Amino acid sequence: MDFRIERDTLGEMMVPADKYWGAQTQRSVENFPIGTEKMPIEMIYAFAQLKKAAAAVNGELGQLAEEKMKAIMEACDEILEGKWDGHFPLVVWQTGSGTQSNMNVNEVVARRASEIAGQEGLIHPNDDVNMSQSSNDTFPTAMHIAVYSEIEKRLKPALKQFANTLQAKEEEYMEVIKIGRTHLQDATPLTLGQEISGWRHMIVQSENMLDQAKAGLLNLAIGGTAVGTGINADPSFGVKTAEQLKKQTDFPFVSSKNKFHALTSHDEIVFVHGALKALAADAMKIANDVRWLASGPRSGLGELTIPANEPGSSIMPGKVNPTQSEALTMAAVQVFGNDAAVGFAASQGNFELNVFKPVILYNVLQSIRLLADGISSFDERCAAGIEANRDVIDHLMKQSLMLVTALNPHIGYEKAAEIAKTAHQNGTTLKEAALASGYVTNKEYDQWIDPKQMVNLPKKRN
Amino acid sequence: MDFRIERDTLGEMMVPADKYWGAQTQRSVENFPIGTEKMPIEMIYAFAQLKKAAAAVNGELGQLAEEKMKAIMEACDEILEGKWDGHFPLVVWQTGSGTQSNMNVNEVVARRASEIAGQEGLIHPNDDVNMSQSSNDTFPTAMHIAVYSEIEKRLKPALKQFANTLQAKEEEYMEVIKIGRTHLQDATPLTLGQEISGWRHMIVQSENMLDQAKAGLLNLAIGGTAVGTGINADPSFGVKTAEQLKKQTDFPFVSSKNKFHALTSHDEIVFVHGALKALAADAMKIANDVRWLASGPRSGLGELTIPANEPGSSIMPGKVNPTQSEALTMAAVQVFGNDAAVGFAASQGNFELNVFKPVILYNVLQSIRLLADGISSFDERCAAGIEANRDVIDHLMKQSLMLVTALNPHIGYEKAAEIAKTAHQNGTTLKEAALASGYVTNKEYDQWIDPKQMVNLPKKRN
Amino acid sequence: MDFRIERDTLGEMMVPADKYWGAQTQRSVENFPIGTEKMPIEMIYAFAQLKKAAAAVNGELGQLAEEKMKAIMEACDEILEGKWDGHFPLVVWQTGSGTQSNMNVNEVVARRASEIAGQEGLIHPNDDVNMSQSSNDTFPTAMHIAVYSEIEKRLKPALKQFANTLQAKEEEYMEVIKIGRTHLQDATPLTLGQEISGWRHMIVQSENMLDQAKAGLLNLAIGGTAVGTGINADPSFGVKTAEQLKKQTDFPFVSSKNKFHALTSHDEIVFVHGALKALAADAMKIANDVRWLASGPRSGLGELTIPANEPGSSIMPGKVNPTQSEALTMAAVQVFGNDAAVGFAASQGNFELNVFKPVILYNVLQSIRLLADGISSFDERCAAGIEANRDVIDHLMKQSLMLVTALNPHIGYEKAAEIAKTAHQNGTTLKEAALASGYVTNKEYDQWIDPKQMVNLPKKRN
Amino acid sequence: MDFRIERDTLGEMMVPADKYWGAQTQRSVENFPIGTEKMPIEMIYAFAQLKKAAAAVNGELGQLAEEKMKAIMEACDEILEGKWDGHFPLVVWQTGSGTQSNMNVNEVVARRASEIAGQEGLIHPNDDVNMSQSSNDTFPTAMHIAVYSEIEKRLKPALKQFANTLQAKEEEYMEVIKIGRTHLQDATPLTLGQEISGWRHMIVQSENMLDQAKAGLLNLAIGGTAVGTGINADPSFGVKTAEQLKKQTDFPFVSSKNKFHALTSHDEIVFVHGALKALAADAMKIANDVRWLASGPRSGLGELTIPANEPGSSIMPGKVNPTQSEALTMAAVQVFGNDAAVGFAASQGNFELNVFKPVILYNVLQSIRLLADGISSFDERCAAGIEANRDVIDHLMKQSLMLVTALNPHIGYEKAAEIAKTAHQNGTTLKEAALASGYVTNKEYDQWIDPKQMVNLPKKRN
Repeated sequence: MDFRIERDTLGEMMVPADKYWGAQTQRSVENFPIGTEKMPIEMIYAFAQLKKAAAAVNGELGQLAEEKMKAIMEACDEILEGKWDGHFPLVVWQTGSGTQSNMNVNEVVARRASEIAGQEGLIHPNDDVNMSQSSNDTFPTAMHIAVYSEIEKRLKPALKQFANTLQAKEEEYMEVIKIGRTHLQDATPLTLGQEISGWRHMIVQSENMLDQAKAGLLNLAIGGTAVGTGINADPSFGVKTAEQLKKQTDFPFVSSKNKFHALTSHDEIVFVHGALKALAADAMKIANDVRWLASGPRSGLGELTIPANEPGSSIMPGKVNPTQSEALTMAAVQVFGNDAAVGFAASQGNFELNVFKPVILYNVLQSIRLLADGISSFDERCAAGIEANRDVIDHLMKQSLMLVTALNPHIGYEKAAEIAKTAHQNGTTLKEAALASGYVTNKEYDQWIDPKQMVNLPKKRN
Repeated sequence: MDFRIERDTLGEMMVPADKYWGAQTQRSVENFPIGTEKMPIEMIYAFAQLKKAAAAVNGELGQLAEEKMKAIMEACDEILEGKWDGHFPLVVWQTGSGTQSNMNVNEVVARRASEIAGQEGLIHPNDDVNMSQSSNDTFPTAMHIAVYSEIEKRLKPALKQFANTLQAKEEEYMEVIKIGRTHLQDATPLTLGQEISGWRHMIVQSENMLDQAKAGLLNLAIGGTAVGTGINADPSFGVKTAEQLKKQTDFPFVSSKNKFHALTSHDEIVFVHGALKALAADAMKIANDVRWLASGPRSGLGELTIPANEPGSSIMPGKVNPTQSEALTMAAVQVFGNDAAVGFAASQGNFELNVFKPVILYNVLQSIRLLADGISSFDERCAAGIEANRDVIDHLMKQSLMLVTALNPHIGYEKAAEIAKTAHQNGTTLKEAALASGYVTNKEYDQWIDPKQMVNLPKKRN
Repeated sequence: MDFRIERDTLGEMMVPADKYWGAQTQRSVENFPIGTEKMPIEMIYAFAQLKKAAAAVNGELGQLAEEKMKAIMEACDEILEGKWDGHFPLVVWQTGSGTQSNMNVNEVVARRASEIAGQEGLIHPNDDVNMSQSSNDTFPTAMHIAVYSEIEKRLKPALKQFANTLQAKEEEYMEVIKIGRTHLQDATPLTLGQEISGWRHMIVQSENMLDQAKAGLLNLAIGGTAVGTGINADPSFGVKTAEQLKKQTDFPFVSSKNKFHALTSHDEIVFVHGALKALAADAMKIANDVRWLASGPRSGLGELTIPANEPGSSIMPGKVNPTQSEALTMAAVQVFGNDAAVGFAASQGNFELNVFKPVILYNVLQSIRLLADGISSFDERCAAGIEANRDVIDHLMKQSLMLVTALNPHIGYEKAAEIAKTAHQNGTTLKEAALASGYVTNKEYDQWIDPKQMVNLPKKRN
Repeated sequence: MDFRIERDTLGEMMVPADKYWGAQTQRSVENFPIGTEKMPIEMIYAFAQLKKAAAAVNGELGQLAEEKMKAIMEACDEILEGKWDGHFPLVVWQTGSGTQSNMNVNEVVARRASEIAGQEGLIHPNDDVNMSQSSNDTFPTAMHIAVYSEIEKRLKPALKQFANTLQAKEEEYMEVIKIGRTHLQDATPLTLGQEISGWRHMIVQSENMLDQAKAGLLNLAIGGTAVGTGINADPSFGVKTAEQLKKQTDFPFVSSKNKFHALTSHDEIVFVHGALKALAADAMKIANDVRWLASGPRSGLGELTIPANEPGSSIMPGKVNPTQSEALTMAAVQVFGNDAAVGFAASQGNFELNVFKPVILYNVLQSIRLLADGISSFDERCAAGIEANRDVIDHLMKQSLMLVTALNPHIGYEKAAEIAKTAHQNGTTLKEAALASGYVTNKEYDQWIDPKQMVNLPKKRN
């Protein structure tokens, strides 16, 4: 491999000749041979947005020459186009302020922008690209940009599509009456469409909560620089850069009201991850319901059929398994683990800085991606293909003893209980036991025990 | 002990003669000798509110005789006054729907209301007190009432008072310039007031997030009865009961739009606990900062003095420790643990019901109480008594090398670094090293290195 | 209420006249109005054991007069008999070293021992009862004693009894062939006894792991005093006190080899809680299996019947629910939450002390109690009453398509898959599809498809 | 790209022509576009060991022709040499049994072995490579192999090396007396070597616990096949394969005593991860201590100097940060998050199988790698370069008031407290206050207050 010599304030470093990064990035490569998890590319793109916006504002404030400004902005655009993805080699497990990833971006932008401007070394990573900035305000700013964008661009579309799929199934099956189950035990009936509406409502509600929570991410640390006072930045720099980012991204970012908070607390991200965890809990519940209702084919509940996407077993021929449920519930479990890591990390700030930023970012982005991908895959390869086994559903519903509940208002809870127990012990139908009890006549039974009425569907508009 | 005989649908039970509970409560007492954690009294009160509201609505709908309605409502009022606290003996570790605690309330209310009405056995726990209801909708309804109330009545006042204390300290110390610390290492200066403003902003921001999150708790499951269809309840029952609860509590409760969701998903509570965890992370950070800044008295940072509330050591005479910080950080750790339990439990619903409700409730209420009490105690016995050690603060600030940062815009990052390193290696002041470097004149140094300017306090209005 | 005046190094305090505690305990009562969780009584007893042992050793070393020694030991014995339970009012959320609970014990012992010796004030809480000790070594010592004892006396008996119950069921049902289920889908058969043997093995394996892990608790911090150096204690004090504790408790305690570790790391307790979490995971799995297999009564799997311990529903008459499973799974969820708290707390030590000791202790003891009580209750009220529904089991097993697996060695996986799928699509029996395929003769089928052979029961000894 | 057609029991698939995987792998690639986390290569290698052993045993049992056996074993050896790393494209988020990764290995081995044997299609993925096996026993077997190996080969060497480094520092600084700190407040003295010995003991103790816990991993599921009964495998297959694996790896694997447990419980892995969490807690504590003791350079504790590995700040010139501590504490936080995921996943088994296996494996292997790499990096780039600042240490120790503790045995706790407080309030030395108190003479003071005696170093052997 070819190398070139680069320098920083600690001295010289050998850098691969075909890479745009500089000495500080190279030091980090060598000093942190830890794990395999790279700083996510979504974070690099968020940094590129930020460096572009900062250059624009520094130019506007007259602190950065127009030539440099333009070159920096162009270099950032190239990064955003994915041209330089291979030039960000650092891992998550580096300095806790993310300084080295900030410098990685500064170095790549400086080198590429100098090239664009046609003069090697024209643009300095610290003095020009990092002008008016510190890692301590840029890293949390880029975190907010990256997480907000991923929620908007990756997760929310997945949720909307899934809600649509569920709504279609809900409408299709709104009148298919089935047995309800509470405590895993037979309960009063509802319709399959109603059951699915509960799932849809979980997704809709989770999306609402995510929308509420993500608002906190709009507050950006930029302008705080080293410790929150904004040293070496123009007092207007934070506000202007947030406005510029709003223009670039169409997300309504603002400058955080209190920069001391912005550098050292990540309460807003903890809160966002709380919404992700609520979604994970719902996703787990839905995926579990689907696989249980589809259990069988002969010795399970068997109320639903789901698509057979692949051979299920290496030893049992013809076996088909609810693998999309399994992938989604595993993803949910990972989100639960990540939630613990995010909260822990957020509690460990000291004085003017929290130095657990990369591990927070890594976990939040992983959670968003796993939920988005896992839900999309479940939606397309499982939920969309759900079919009701109407015969099974009808059979199980009709033999249920819990229809007895409808007798309460007429004969009271205790007599109704007596009937249900007798039917259970004797293995008879509910009707047989009811009539034998003498509490109910044949006519009353047929009038009172009507599953259709029990499910309380809204009257249809004519 | 004296006993009386009570009956339920499974047969007879011996109940302590001086207790108002009935057979089903007694069964639970005997069937669940698990742990020492009682169903929190706040939950019993929430149930009393609900039973009162339900009786009012059942009366209004003409389903419950006025005599019964009035007696039930009066019995509920007595519970709310704390008259019957000793009659709710059940533990958290019971049936996962909380059915037995619902029945405990039904039984106590029925017995006491019958007494009020002057006719033993007049009022039936199931047919009258539980009319139009199921455990499956009342328990989650009472959960929302209890958690919402505790946030409003216990936690938010604690947060407001703490924010006030911090604001007073912030103003008092707004011009006391001190060294900043990032990565635990010396950084550029800020004022003590600015540092405290970051703490205050954490509390304010946490309160905002809590306010957002708590809105989901206003959705009540009531009206869904057994599985969400509302079987055995008037279609208007949910809406009317929510309205009645709003009147009784002044909290703007509404009937949940989707009862299938309301019985089986607790995403709203997971989300609320996410906000509690964000607050816990902030509380931990603040309590840690305070104890570090007050560390010493002779071999620590020593920038702050905090009240000496008790002898600190059983062996080291005269030792004083930051015990309020310790209590608060331990409470925060518990909230982190609780958060894991709440999320896990919320993911484990099946079909029409989540049967991990009591463990969810227990953890959320514990978190709220520990945060409220812990923060109040910290506020009153520690934060309110914080005093700045101005001499120490001034001394540490002035000897700092990181004031060098202000030279960047004038001589560039690299030369500034050279100066700082030289000062560090030679143990000189920054100024000595700066002048020796030749990059800066004496006059420039005095003009550029001005801590007051570095902290960027807003101009005072005259 | 009557009061008396007590003093400590900070001044005078009003203490309830009928209580044996002193000024420092009273300060803690007043300074920490946080939560409702008292320091567990098991911890107080562990302290009493320790104070008794320390007095014996101090006496033996000639540092404590015999009169004082005897009085202290007698006072400790009274505490261990439960005579003074009402004199330990402190909460968990106090100083993180537990100093105040150490002083609470010191004060109660000193006052009571002075009374026994017949001379008020004879025995000093610090100079006599706490002689050769610090909170920093006694609190972790008492933690180890309390946790070890609770494992031995509370948890292990519960595990053994449960394993016995399972073994009896395992033997009873060893030849009842049933369908296996993997991915919730039908799989090859096994016997119900085999299935139960898996549950039993989980309990046995958990107990083994607990035994391994608990060994670390035998290392006691005692002798380290304030920071681990053993200042103010005879060099032999730690070893002798551990020996004395061994005599008193019959548990083979030893003095920790490195006291600096013993005061500031709780890795041994984290490890123990890891074993508790493994047990919780197993308990959750068993409780879930039982309730799923008992689901129904008409629309579930219905392979098992479990005891009907109480009416299951406040609205659905005659409903019976798997409430012991629910209580146990909720307890397991709590253990998972506690595990997060314990690990977090253990990571937060600084320098010579970890000051998150009370919260660690509280969580570990709660986990042990919940697992012990929850498993015992599940054992007695559910597992012991499990009955197999042999008809259901036989019916489900015989209609399974996964018996096809036994054809693999004879006709290969792909042809076997073809047969299973045909049977599934056409709704026929496996045999019909097998014969129709032409791959298998009638005779071969009957020879190869023999569920009895598939379950591979060990040959019986004659 | 070129493709070839492959078939499985569901039909035809297009597979990249240059890849050795088959139709089932390809289905998984297409069906699970979730996340970016690949099945770890360590797991593929563990599978290769297992497939090699299984082939050897099948050959020995006469069930697999020698030609096939040899070809399979050779293909496995090639995988173990790393020749086919690019042929295992599947992600973690697939079927929860890991069936698809088992089939991926089966397919690659079958194709490559056929090639080695010189006859395309000679060796069948299911009938030959998977002979006597199921995913349900091979995946957990490979999990145990992979995790055990990583502990032995990656983590334990890192721990040993770190313990060695600490031991050298401990010896170097065994007589450097410094102030102790408890509750962050000044306490009685100890030596720096003693303090470091506590750290070393944490690592040693963690290694011991890991050794205990890892023993459970030696139990292998192999031989259980589909549901634990061993259908389609020779009764001796499990034992023989474990023996063969022992030969191949030098690790003393055995066949699990209860295969029903082995397929559906992962308690052993939860337990192992508990030991990893205990290590993470210790690592966090050590890394925190180091960075606090090295805080400064001018306004922190400053007792230690650590290596300056890179420029610390993008805005503050000359700043050096404890970045290795930061990387290690972030890694520790991740291990805490992973621990939550592992425990949760392990609790979610149903009936004969736990289908959260890949997510368990992924988290455990990540934890091991992060701890191993993080500790090694911390060891080499930070711990090994720790230097004591003897002047600072001596200065802080000598001005401490907590030396007063040594007066307790002579004048009692209360008088000693009086002296310490007076010195603190008046800002005098301890000696001045002691003499002024009249409780101590000059000679007594010098005799009793001797830091060297207070640290209780063991007498040196002459």
